[in-house]
Amino acid sequence: MIAKTPPPPYYAVIFSNIRTEEDDQQYHETAQRMVELAEMQPGYLGHESVRDGLGITISYWDNLDSIRAWKAHAEHLEAQRSGREKWYAAYKTRVCLVERDYGM
Amino acid sequence: MIAKTPPPPYYAVIFSNIRTEEDDQQYHETAQRMVELAEMQPGYLGHESVRDGLGITISYWDNLDSIRAWKAHAEHLEAQRSGREKWYAAYKTRVCLVERDYGM
Repeated sequence: MIAKTPPPPYYAVIFSNIRTEEDDQQYHETAQRMVELAEMQPGYLGHESVRDGLGITISYWDNLDSIRAWKAHAEHLEAQRSGREKWYAAYKTRVCLVERDYGM
Repeated sequence: MIAKTPPPPYYAVIFSNIRTEEDDQQYHETAQRMVELAEMQPGYLGHESVRDGLGITISYWDNLDSIRAWKAHAEHLEAQRSGREKWYAAYKTRVCLVERDYGM
């Protein structure tokens, strides 16, 4: 679904990634857990996620402090480490200020 | 593929969308043409695109003027009109300043 975000300004974290072939059950459990955990964080506004070869997950946040706190969350740090070591062949994270939005 | 972008700051335009069932040949031709045309625009830096139910296309740009010029391009305006009238059930466009990025 398209995330229902408030009027700008707010932040977007774009996580573009390509998976390895390491497709263990732990990956899927962790991915699901990270979504649930992110939703509970202060400043979380929503997320959008798609994969078809390339994966793009965008999370939306109220401010930079919320993004920093989520990046430093103990369980998330552990997931990030497994991601680098096992699950992702390549990724890029982009932290963005959403200045304007419109839609239908 | 993950877009190879220069060091920040630069801009991202996140286009999140849900298609209608109007899946005519013209849609696919237009989508392909818009990618080719965008790549020729001044200030274009790259793009990433995925669909799996939800579609996310992110284009990266050097500055806001480039984004404005591309939005106002005659052929693109026509494609945007067809998008609103026929091809998209819902969409949201977010114009973002990429402040920081990192990856592997």
